[in-house]
Amino acid sequence: MVFPDEEALAAAVRRRLTSQRFAHTVGVVETADQLARRFGLDVQRARVAAWLHDVAKDEPPESLLKRAKEFDIVFDEITARVTELWHALVGSEIARREFGIDDEDVLAAIRHHTTGRAGMSGLEQVIFLADVIEPGRAFPGVDELRRRSREDLEGAVLAALESTICYVIRQGGLLHPDAVAARNHILLRRS
Amino acid sequence: MVFPDEEALAAAVRRRLTSQRFAHTVGVVETADQLARRFGLDVQRARVAAWLHDVAKDEPPESLLKRAKEFDIVFDEITARVTELWHALVGSEIARREFGIDDEDVLAAIRHHTTGRAGMSGLEQVIFLADVIEPGRAFPGVDELRRRSREDLEGAVLAALESTICYVIRQGGLLHPDAVAARNHILLRRS
Repeated sequence: MVFPDEEALAAAVRRRLTSQRFAHTVGVVETADQLARRFGLDVQRARVAAWLHDVAKDEPPESLLKRAKEFDIVFDEITARVTELWHALVGSEIARREFGIDDEDVLAAIRHHTTGRAGMSGLEQVIFLADVIEPGRAFPGVDELRRRSREDLEGAVLAALESTICYVIRQGGLLHPDAVAARNHILLRRS
Repeated sequence: MVFPDEEALAAAVRRRLTSQRFAHTVGVVETADQLARRFGLDVQRARVAAWLHDVAKDEPPESLLKRAKEFDIVFDEITARVTELWHALVGSEIARREFGIDDEDVLAAIRHHTTGRAGMSGLEQVIFLADVIEPGRAFPGVDELRRRSREDLEGAVLAALESTICYVIRQGGLLHPDAVAARNHILLRRS
């Protein structure tokens, strides 16, 4: 694919986000860059996916729903009821249609960054993990995740999935089956 | 259905179980009886399902695998790798073929008692919960589950599912998607 000019990309993303969200995105770009370098993955792809991962996150639910219909995105039963999951699916289509991204791995990394999924690519793992551990995040256990991310990408993704699953359960939220499938898949691969 | 004579049933189950497992089963029968009475469900069905829920649990994995093949039971990807899940599926078929149980709700309560599943019947909930909270069980949080089970069957099942899911994650075990689907289904019903 032809990647967009990164300064123009950052500026276009900035226009769609609150300043807080943009600061988070900058943290994800930096973290994804480091992870990609460390684990021998394509750094440019990682940076583009990171810039765009939350591109739709500051749109209100009604607007996301409208875009989802426009883009022929069909929500599964759980996604339909968890508005926090919508921005990833819509954001991936925005990346494709409005930013000209045609790299399917980049698009998948955006689409699946909130829940993960079984059989995540290296790039998908980098974006999923960078979103959880970027420097602006502060939650119990985040330093341990950062430590693990220095040695073992997949192991850190596994721990991040477990942290997310238990957090959703404690909050009484619906748990997307993709997160559980992502964890099971990694356990099976490592056993 | 014609239910088996309960004394004969108990004696036949006893012959297949270690004394520890039989003591657990007696606890599940008593607890299932109380829960069924409390929530207006069929007590006889609950007792029969409770007697038989672990009927296959003391068979070694090789034997369970052989029975599963004999019974044309196809394990899904996760079940195939978690031997602790096999006894429920095999036990349900033993109940049908060797104990003459033809009540599909009783058979389903045996089959799904380890993981739960989306849309559990009242009887399925009673057996799932009785297995977790019978008097012989001792784990952090069990008294809170017992307390909840006195007022709200489905709420106690929800809490028991959450306790089980987090336990499996802490143990590093594969998580069966049915347990997550069971929890999501209850949350959706109650929202």
